Amino acid sequence: MFGLMQEGQLTLDALLSHAARWHGGTEVVWNDNQGARHRTVYADCLGRAKQVSNALLAAGIRLGDRIGTLGWNSAQHFEAWYGTVAIGAVCHTLNPRLLPDQIGYLVRHAGNRVIFADSACLSILETILPACPMVEQVIFFDDETICLIDGSAVSVDGFSAWIGRHGADCDWGGFDERTAAGLCYTSGTTGNPKGVLYSHRSNYLHSLITCQADGLNLASTDTVLLLVPMYHANAWGLVYSAPMAGARLVLPGQRVDGATLYELIESEGVTFAAGVPTVWQGLLKYCRETGSRLTRLKRAVVAGSVCPETIVREFLEHDVEVLHAWGMTEASPLATLSSPDREVAAMPLDDRIRYSLKQGRTLPGVDLKLTDDHGRRLPHDGRTPGRLHVKGETIVGAYFGQEDIAILDGEGFFDTGDIATIDHRGYMQITDRAKDVIKSGGEWISSVDLETIALGHPKAELCAVIGVPHPKWDERPLLLMKLKGGAVATAEEILAYLDGKIAKWWMPDEVRFVDEIPLGATGKIDKKKLRDSHST
Amino acid sequence: MFGLMQEGQLTLDALLSHAARWHGGTEVVWNDNQGARHRTVYADCLGRAKQVSNALLAAGIRLGDRIGTLGWNSAQHFEAWYGTVAIGAVCHTLNPRLLPDQIGYLVRHAGNRVIFADSACLSILETILPACPMVEQVIFFDDETICLIDGSAVSVDGFSAWIGRHGADCDWGGFDERTAAGLCYTSGTTGNPKGVLYSHRSNYLHSLITCQADGLNLASTDTVLLLVPMYHANAWGLVYSAPMAGARLVLPGQRVDGATLYELIESEGVTFAAGVPTVWQGLLKYCRETGSRLTRLKRAVVAGSVCPETIVREFLEHDVEVLHAWGMTEASPLATLSSPDREVAAMPLDDRIRYSLKQGRTLPGVDLKLTDDHGRRLPHDGRTPGRLHVKGETIVGAYFGQEDIAILDGEGFFDTGDIATIDHRGYMQITDRAKDVIKSGGEWISSVDLETIALGHPKAELCAVIGVPHPKWDERPLLLMKLKGGAVATAEEILAYLDGKIAKWWMPDEVRFVDEIPLGATGKIDKKKLRDSHST
Repeated sequence: MFGLMQEGQLTLDALLSHAARWHGGTEVVWNDNQGARHRTVYADCLGRAKQVSNALLAAGIRLGDRIGTLGWNSAQHFEAWYGTVAIGAVCHTLNPRLLPDQIGYLVRHAGNRVIFADSACLSILETILPACPMVEQVIFFDDETICLIDGSAVSVDGFSAWIGRHGADCDWGGFDERTAAGLCYTSGTTGNPKGVLYSHRSNYLHSLITCQADGLNLASTDTVLLLVPMYHANAWGLVYSAPMAGARLVLPGQRVDGATLYELIESEGVTFAAGVPTVWQGLLKYCRETGSRLTRLKRAVVAGSVCPETIVREFLEHDVEVLHAWGMTEASPLATLSSPDREVAAMPLDDRIRYSLKQGRTLPGVDLKLTDDHGRRLPHDGRTPGRLHVKGETIVGAYFGQEDIAILDGEGFFDTGDIATIDHRGYMQITDRAKDVIKSGGEWISSVDLETIALGHPKAELCAVIGVPHPKWDERPLLLMKLKGGAVATAEEILAYLDGKIAKWWMPDEVRFVDEIPLGATGKIDKKKLRDSHST
Repeated sequence: MFGLMQEGQLTLDALLSHAARWHGGTEVVWNDNQGARHRTVYADCLGRAKQVSNALLAAGIRLGDRIGTLGWNSAQHFEAWYGTVAIGAVCHTLNPRLLPDQIGYLVRHAGNRVIFADSACLSILETILPACPMVEQVIFFDDETICLIDGSAVSVDGFSAWIGRHGADCDWGGFDERTAAGLCYTSGTTGNPKGVLYSHRSNYLHSLITCQADGLNLASTDTVLLLVPMYHANAWGLVYSAPMAGARLVLPGQRVDGATLYELIESEGVTFAAGVPTVWQGLLKYCRETGSRLTRLKRAVVAGSVCPETIVREFLEHDVEVLHAWGMTEASPLATLSSPDREVAAMPLDDRIRYSLKQGRTLPGVDLKLTDDHGRRLPHDGRTPGRLHVKGETIVGAYFGQEDIAILDGEGFFDTGDIATIDHRGYMQITDRAKDVIKSGGEWISSVDLETIALGHPKAELCAVIGVPHPKWDERPLLLMKLKGGAVATAEEILAYLDGKIAKWWMPDEVRFVDEIPLGATGKIDKKKLRDSHST
């Protein structure tokens, strides 16, 4: 027997329609890529997004077609996003910082017929379009630079002129909530990137789930700065959750240096902002050097990589609460947040900070488990590391174009590729990437923990720990260290420093001093390269 | 093209499973009907709820069967509720304060084969069971009073003994999220009560929607006092939303007098509580008379009827924030909340209080509209009253047993039967019941507003305004007034008092002084009876 409630579909067009109808005068503010400030309101965003829909329909775009976007955070990007998903087309966000060859691969793999782009990305388009024959049209967000693209026959237009030829009446939604809405590729370190195809339902639920009090806790009284680029991991869901909450939205464009950010936060009264640690470090450095104080910001979400303790402590001096979050493109992306539970909230400051540095607790609708290499569940004791798996309607089920490859286990969990612990309170902490953990005598040694501790040595500038094959123990840790300029050290003094700080069996078998430690495209240590050159 | 995310069903068993898995040590505390305190934790609730499921399955209960509950708020009631819905049976909450004949009607209409009950309801059961042959089994929540029911052949058992014969392993969920989960009847003032049949999906979404920051904003740091009875309007959704948030849960049993409540709130550290105005008035009166201060409570949700301003001001003296909410059984039940938006939050205190007394703003997923009697939309100008309609997946689509009667308009909206205004900020304010509003010369006069203003006269104890037929204006207002003991007044002095406080055309054509103003079962003025005796 079914219930007798109204039957609707959780489609994402409803979120902007809600904002326009009930928070229509609430501002959307943005800096363009030159840093000039502009402002509009949700009601007007809705009108332009409907013009985008009509323009796409006129261009022959239909349910399921993939539309590329290549640009930084702006109101036009926001409107193009909604105009696309609201008619059942798929918003495929492209990262302009990737190599042109990679972008070309993604455009072809996704089959983008239309691309919205910042004019700052013109040279990327000139490079890739000759090899992307499926692209029929490029719409530049910034009108003043309507231009022809050399070597390509695609139709080019400016956003305002293009949508200006269409009305703002358009029936949105009306399709199945399982319809695809977004396509976001992982920046895989091995092999080609894999596409995560979000549905309307998964993104709608992600918005409701992440906006809970123990989550982002967004209110209509907030002014949200979307510091994370819209092309990064589904914009952490904020393109949906900010209008859903009726929050004022601030989009920073390309320039996110400390001085620009500080001015933007203070002048626009930003109360909530979300970004990666390096961007926050730039802001805090600016505040430190200029003696500036953050007077408006209340909460800062830090995610994308591990949050250094200094960020938490420095933000606290400005009375800003840090919300450490963890997620991945495959999880829409947010899966856990380090908000305090009842007991942690009552702890002394240093303990609370210790908990806020963990990746945090899961929200309703996302389940976690730890397993060993054989899929057996491991305890949540805060000590036993295991492979972290996630399950829920906001978690990937299969990759785009690889639907026949099973990526879930028998219980329906997705293996994150991370090694983590979970304590009895439910706080999860990532200890390593699965491919980097050192498996010694059946136990796991965290390369990340060893690196963090070794980095505490006053002469160390950068550290990397990799596992090298061992006849008896399978693998043993090798510590590679780049010393600070002018410093000289012996392996013995480094090992003596580690003694007492780590378990005996974690002690590296060898310390090698190196001139350089190679970094990958995202600034993380390239351990694959290190293993290739140091494993013997 | 569908997205490629994991496919699950939004079934309500997941909410208690989530609480047990991630907040397993969090307490559920309850007073029994004698006022004695008991405590358990979510992990143990889950085990007992699974035993309930197994016991129901052993009794032949299957998907779609309706299970009655007749009792006050206790852990057993909570566990029986989850044990029922988690196997796809329907939890039908019965209000012990109804007349036995009404309860009997509901049991028969719903077809309850099993009833869970407090032993305090024994005499009700003895009265109704002879005429309810479909009832096979009664399970008393309080074990110490296992008893036979006179004049009935039903099987009787105590909760602990009954579930004790079954294990705590039970596969929950696994059915369609549109499956019916709850059945709650409206206490209609005319005709027989109508049943609202909630689905798993509608209740799950209601939990996510109402827990947003501008909604109930429940966190795992909260201790929630479920003051509203579980039989009242789907317990305002808190049976689902409290465990979803991982909040500590306090269930008060039958005794909710001021002294008992004060002790419960202070000793258990209640931070959040939800109840009707009369219960709050009892608590505040106790505080006033004993000079007691509420030191733990942070937020009080007031709903069920209009919130008097004195409640808001008195709570403020205790640093308790009042959240005025509006809803109805047909809306799961919460539809709007009077949380402050950006502009209201910045207003002076008196203005903020004025806004907090409105019924408030809608949350994402619930749409509102105002229309005239012909279904034409009216403006959101804060002045024009109209019939209030609601739409969304948490709103009723049809009544149970009356599936063939259409209750939605062409746009899919449900007519609430209330008259309201909506201002440009989206704040809705109920001005009348549609059947009580006075239609004079094509315009509407709010009987509620007139009563409130007339009640300001120092000699007035109780006022009622009804419309009486008029040859030219269709209806004109008649003011009925009960004077305070010993007071004497003339119609002229009452009308002179109203002059200048209301629009000229609102002025009652007549004032009648009466000895009594009849009240209905829920304490509201019985205007039907007044119209019957005063319309000529």
